[in-house]
Amino acid sequence: MSGLIRRSDRGEDEKREVTIKRHWLDTGEGNVLVNFGNTTVLCVASFVEGVPKWRKGSGKGWVTAEYSMLPRATQDRMQRESVRGKIGGRTHEISRLIGRSLRSIVDLDALGENTISLDCDVLQADGGTRTASITGAFVALADAVNWAVSKNIISPHRKPIISDTVSAISVGILSGQAVLDLPYVEDSMADTDMNVVMTGKGSLVEVQGTAEGEVFTRQELNTLLDLAEKGCMELAQLQRDVLFSSSPIDSRIIAK
Amino acid sequence: MSGLIRRSDRGEDEKREVTIKRHWLDTGEGNVLVNFGNTTVLCVASFVEGVPKWRKGSGKGWVTAEYSMLPRATQDRMQRESVRGKIGGRTHEISRLIGRSLRSIVDLDALGENTISLDCDVLQADGGTRTASITGAFVALADAVNWAVSKNIISPHRKPIISDTVSAISVGILSGQAVLDLPYVEDSMADTDMNVVMTGKGSLVEVQGTAEGEVFTRQELNTLLDLAEKGCMELAQLQRDVLFSSSPIDSRIIAK
Amino acid sequence: MSGLIRRSDRGEDEKREVTIKRHWLDTGEGNVLVNFGNTTVLCVASFVEGVPKWRKGSGKGWVTAEYSMLPRATQDRMQRESVRGKIGGRTHEISRLIGRSLRSIVDLDALGENTISLDCDVLQADGGTRTASITGAFVALADAVNWAVSKNIISPHRKPIISDTVSAISVGILSGQAVLDLPYVEDSMADTDMNVVMTGKGSLVEVQGTAEGEVFTRQELNTLLDLAEKGCMELAQLQRDVLFSSSPIDSRIIAK
Amino acid sequence: MSGLIRRSDRGEDEKREVTIKRHWLDTGEGNVLVNFGNTTVLCVASFVEGVPKWRKGSGKGWVTAEYSMLPRATQDRMQRESVRGKIGGRTHEISRLIGRSLRSIVDLDALGENTISLDCDVLQADGGTRTASITGAFVALADAVNWAVSKNIISPHRKPIISDTVSAISVGILSGQAVLDLPYVEDSMADTDMNVVMTGKGSLVEVQGTAEGEVFTRQELNTLLDLAEKGCMELAQLQRDVLFSSSPIDSRIIAK
Amino acid sequence: MSGLIRRSDRGEDEKREVTIKRHWLDTGEGNVLVNFGNTTVLCVASFVEGVPKWRKGSGKGWVTAEYSMLPRATQDRMQRESVRGKIGGRTHEISRLIGRSLRSIVDLDALGENTISLDCDVLQADGGTRTASITGAFVALADAVNWAVSKNIISPHRKPIISDTVSAISVGILSGQAVLDLPYVEDSMADTDMNVVMTGKGSLVEVQGTAEGEVFTRQELNTLLDLAEKGCMELAQLQRDVLFSSSPIDSRIIAK
Amino acid sequence: MSGLIRRSDRGEDEKREVTIKRHWLDTGEGNVLVNFGNTTVLCVASFVEGVPKWRKGSGKGWVTAEYSMLPRATQDRMQRESVRGKIGGRTHEISRLIGRSLRSIVDLDALGENTISLDCDVLQADGGTRTASITGAFVALADAVNWAVSKNIISPHRKPIISDTVSAISVGILSGQAVLDLPYVEDSMADTDMNVVMTGKGSLVEVQGTAEGEVFTRQELNTLLDLAEKGCMELAQLQRDVLFSSSPIDSRIIAK
Repeated sequence: MSGLIRRSDRGEDEKREVTIKRHWLDTGEGNVLVNFGNTTVLCVASFVEGVPKWRKGSGKGWVTAEYSMLPRATQDRMQRESVRGKIGGRTHEISRLIGRSLRSIVDLDALGENTISLDCDVLQADGGTRTASITGAFVALADAVNWAVSKNIISPHRKPIISDTVSAISVGILSGQAVLDLPYVEDSMADTDMNVVMTGKGSLVEVQGTAEGEVFTRQELNTLLDLAEKGCMELAQLQRDVLFSSSPIDSRIIAK
Repeated sequence: MSGLIRRSDRGEDEKREVTIKRHWLDTGEGNVLVNFGNTTVLCVASFVEGVPKWRKGSGKGWVTAEYSMLPRATQDRMQRESVRGKIGGRTHEISRLIGRSLRSIVDLDALGENTISLDCDVLQADGGTRTASITGAFVALADAVNWAVSKNIISPHRKPIISDTVSAISVGILSGQAVLDLPYVEDSMADTDMNVVMTGKGSLVEVQGTAEGEVFTRQELNTLLDLAEKGCMELAQLQRDVLFSSSPIDSRIIAK
Repeated sequence: MSGLIRRSDRGEDEKREVTIKRHWLDTGEGNVLVNFGNTTVLCVASFVEGVPKWRKGSGKGWVTAEYSMLPRATQDRMQRESVRGKIGGRTHEISRLIGRSLRSIVDLDALGENTISLDCDVLQADGGTRTASITGAFVALADAVNWAVSKNIISPHRKPIISDTVSAISVGILSGQAVLDLPYVEDSMADTDMNVVMTGKGSLVEVQGTAEGEVFTRQELNTLLDLAEKGCMELAQLQRDVLFSSSPIDSRIIAK
Repeated sequence: MSGLIRRSDRGEDEKREVTIKRHWLDTGEGNVLVNFGNTTVLCVASFVEGVPKWRKGSGKGWVTAEYSMLPRATQDRMQRESVRGKIGGRTHEISRLIGRSLRSIVDLDALGENTISLDCDVLQADGGTRTASITGAFVALADAVNWAVSKNIISPHRKPIISDTVSAISVGILSGQAVLDLPYVEDSMADTDMNVVMTGKGSLVEVQGTAEGEVFTRQELNTLLDLAEKGCMELAQLQRDVLFSSSPIDSRIIAK
Repeated sequence: MSGLIRRSDRGEDEKREVTIKRHWLDTGEGNVLVNFGNTTVLCVASFVEGVPKWRKGSGKGWVTAEYSMLPRATQDRMQRESVRGKIGGRTHEISRLIGRSLRSIVDLDALGENTISLDCDVLQADGGTRTASITGAFVALADAVNWAVSKNIISPHRKPIISDTVSAISVGILSGQAVLDLPYVEDSMADTDMNVVMTGKGSLVEVQGTAEGEVFTRQELNTLLDLAEKGCMELAQLQRDVLFSSSPIDSRIIAK
Repeated sequence: MSGLIRRSDRGEDEKREVTIKRHWLDTGEGNVLVNFGNTTVLCVASFVEGVPKWRKGSGKGWVTAEYSMLPRATQDRMQRESVRGKIGGRTHEISRLIGRSLRSIVDLDALGENTISLDCDVLQADGGTRTASITGAFVALADAVNWAVSKNIISPHRKPIISDTVSAISVGILSGQAVLDLPYVEDSMADTDMNVVMTGKGSLVEVQGTAEGEVFTRQELNTLLDLAEKGCMELAQLQRDVLFSSSPIDSRIIAK
């Protein structure tokens, strides 16, 4: 990689500093303040009795998510979606992505007819808000499952309720170079932008690669996937670390 | 592939019958009725002077798209989004995907400050509505560019305005078998569902792979991409055929 | 009539070429593609169990309609009502008119507590979209009733479920001359514009006459009604022809 | 007419007591409280500089109207449209009708690029709210034109700005009998319901006849029109009386 | 008070002429046309079976209010909130204030699971629309309670259903002088604006003081409260007078 | 005070622990994380060129605020206002209160035609969210003014741009006892609830007292105001402390 120097002399395969603070507030059945560099997202999990109407009587639970940005999370103030009276396409798209990603690793049967809602509110945005949201939301979700287990609402006896961790990271091609975890300034210059959602065991949950200006080849796709895998493996380790260090969750909840 | 038999004895690597009818109506600067099997989409291109506010003064054009389904395009009637008063997340997501896909092959500088809007209205839905929309919308777009060239609004003299064709197809894993171009019944049973947008020369524009219930491996991803590439190459040929057969467009518009 | 020459040398008392294609799609319990010249409307009938809340427990059915135009059905692209977030006055007005017109000839008691919804989506607009919608929707409705009879959901044994055909046509005064079935170019120049909904036996269902610039006399009203009656009688014949030619409906459904 | 006895022994060709109070409030450039029996409508005319965007630069004015019902104008309280967040179809339809009716007798050229907005708010509803609105709104409009003339904003020197009075009344067929000016109880039982808008000289502006349950013949239509004509002629006389009695308007404004 | 002369030589501690007309319409279980000078508000009370969802099963009733202004109640025409598609902050705020004020003097237990809705529609606005609304709404409420008692739906046997009258008035500081009941012209110039809601016995229900430009002292607050108390005591007397003069309500309903 | 024991043995005239963290994020021209006990609000100030349309050409600036609660700030999850598609009355009311309070101490002339927007997003709600918002927003506002001064956009040379500090606190009557700064559990049991906004010099900006169930006397009002004054004086000192300790603002901005 010649010419491009990442901020803070970060290597192209290095992610930004990631921190995940559990129990940052007293609210929710799980809550996490997650940072990917300057990107700050508050992820709150609500464990609620009942399921959406279309799922009633199924005996199965549901996991859903809502993503939102505070109006001045970005460089320029954006109008609130509540003021505009409608939710934008991007917001919808990311909310759906977070929900799908989390459902891929939760045993919805084991939840019974209960819903876990994840609220991911971006307090500060510097690229990677959706990947930070997924990564943080997983930890809040695990805490909410732990809460429900501790209250005997659901039980991990038969098998783990969560089959694996799940995290996400962005990768992109910037001046011909594949790079990991792009902050806003890099993201806005990248030719190809890809978000990868992966389980702790390395299976793919979601691959969303988008050509921005320049189309990309199968080989470039593979390079990007390698990079994303490296990042997600590191995030998975961090997720397990924070969940099992101070006030550790019940070890039977997540499959090893 | 054992056990699963596709409808109409279609092979797992065969797409459904695809037809693209140009000039099906008199409306728009380009219009196409596209069928992927029983999926029927009307794609209308509007060439409009001016660009969105944020792009004014740039000298560059814009390509955008709006996707929508008629209320009874599906098996059960759905409420109109105009009646609900808001557009759903899925609609937003697909509209954005179509717009991005088309922009990847258009020289926006060459458009000048003009906008091409693609309206993709699904008259009948049987899986693959977004891939049929992209594939049909490309042809309507090419007709709209041809119209503008014929009116001397824009010019292909310097270089082709459209750098390549672009089409899309769905692939999925069904009972462990990778299959091409899934109708609704297959799509609802698939473990993994992927939409691939590709140029005629085989470059990737968009890869959206989603685990539905079962996560997937890098190897499965590769098998799916191979299958999608085969499908897109066939669609690219069909697109060129319909554009250059009866009432052919100006040959300088699309790069060879 | 001096001076004014209708397009295609059509006489002032001649309607445009009208075609009604049944079973144009596989969707709905009835579906029709109707053309009044260049005006093209897709009418889909959905037969749905249940009735609106205010009608529950009455033992009676309901017939309702929703009219909509695709954004580029017209010469200039219009913003989608789903995007604007609200339905315009004209759309509401026409939807209500279609519903009322169809209810005038259906035995709602015979439907039981079921609803038939008609979706009339204008694919191309060249004047007379509401009259084409009513005329086409009647045929789709008859097919939906036929479907319900064939499934033994409702029964025509006691008496015909549909008391008569119903169709509609526009008439207007153009440069002092009364003319039938106005395309857009004539409609925009007309002094008086009237839409007449009539049964096959010649009874009036709806008369909506509007002075556009010039008020009109009782005598002019009568001339227009004569013209409309001629047009509706021709449409009624066409409706019966298409319903009883290929794949004819149960002859007991519509009163002779 | 056997069997049916109208309330208050009113004859079938007699309208209810109609009163039109000018200057009932201090607000607007014209304001009127109109009663058709128990139906009470407040009509306020606002004379505003400027015209809607699509009309700018035309040199011509515009007349528009908004109709609305207070939530407890009716027997049962209805939800406010502002609370529901959208305007119903019926409201839109009547607003458009009032606007069209008034435009038919105003010389929009003479208004210059000014707009007269009529707000018709139904304080109490007992049938005929749209006809009372049109009848009252005409008087408020005349006062607003008079105001603008008195302020030298527009001038009646060349010719009258208002070509004739305009009023409206409902007619219907009730148990086979044609009746004039139906209160709610009659309206809800009528087989055919028609609203007729007519100028003071007896020309038709709008005819909206609707079969409610029973279709109607040309002969019935004629009987209804005769009845409506009688009612409108009486209303026209009343309108002239109130405009030219106390604080009479400039006599050159309305054509004789 | 030097310099400032109130319109009509009104003293600074005198309220405008206030009139409260009961039974002005036939609509509602109580209705009142109230004037505070040129401010005219129609207050209609609807007594409806049932309570909001969150209150079901409590055995208690509810009192709620909706405030709205007609578009041309003010000097310049404002857009209808139903047309804008949303209710403004000021409207919400005043609606909530009216509801709270009335609930402070009603025995909600005695209502049973019934709701009294107050609709306060401002026909003409000249300052003090919220205080006129509360003052008039109280009388309409008392009539609605009286209606329910007369129908034996609720009973005043055990104790009065209404514990006291409630009224409201505005006070403000204008050019350093405390004044009572400000019309629009004074209100727009006032430095401090306060609305006080008080019971007939002189207890405070709501105090809303707002510095407009100039902050205020505790002493000024006390002067304003004295003035407001004087005004509210006069209004309380008027309320009792109109309720017990012609067609007096059941004397057991309101505590003495 | 007998019987009632406040949580944490707090005295009835003691406020909860209040912390104001400046520069908690990198976003906005000023940002503050404020805690009133467990109530946590993020206040971000945006300094934006230009003023609302109605203020253009005045040469003066504007200060506005938007208040919002995250969906799980409260014990039970609430639906997002962006999802409901409209902003509730309470949200509007508080947003307006914050804006008014801040405008009372800013010299809008000195701002020039610039707007300062305060976004107060409640991350966790335990009573007093509006008072915490006002108190924190003032500090964020001061930082934004300081930013604009440091960029030479506005100047404090002539006189201080901010005439005083402004803060707010709640007071209430709980079991007959006046208490300061009520958390949610106390607030929900209080008979009277009052929010007082006060400047650092002890002038009143806003007094909003509301009887919840029990009306209150002038004497109780005075006791509550005394208590509020004590709380606000302490908050004013804290505001000055945080603004002039680390990274102190320009001392000429706020009047002493």
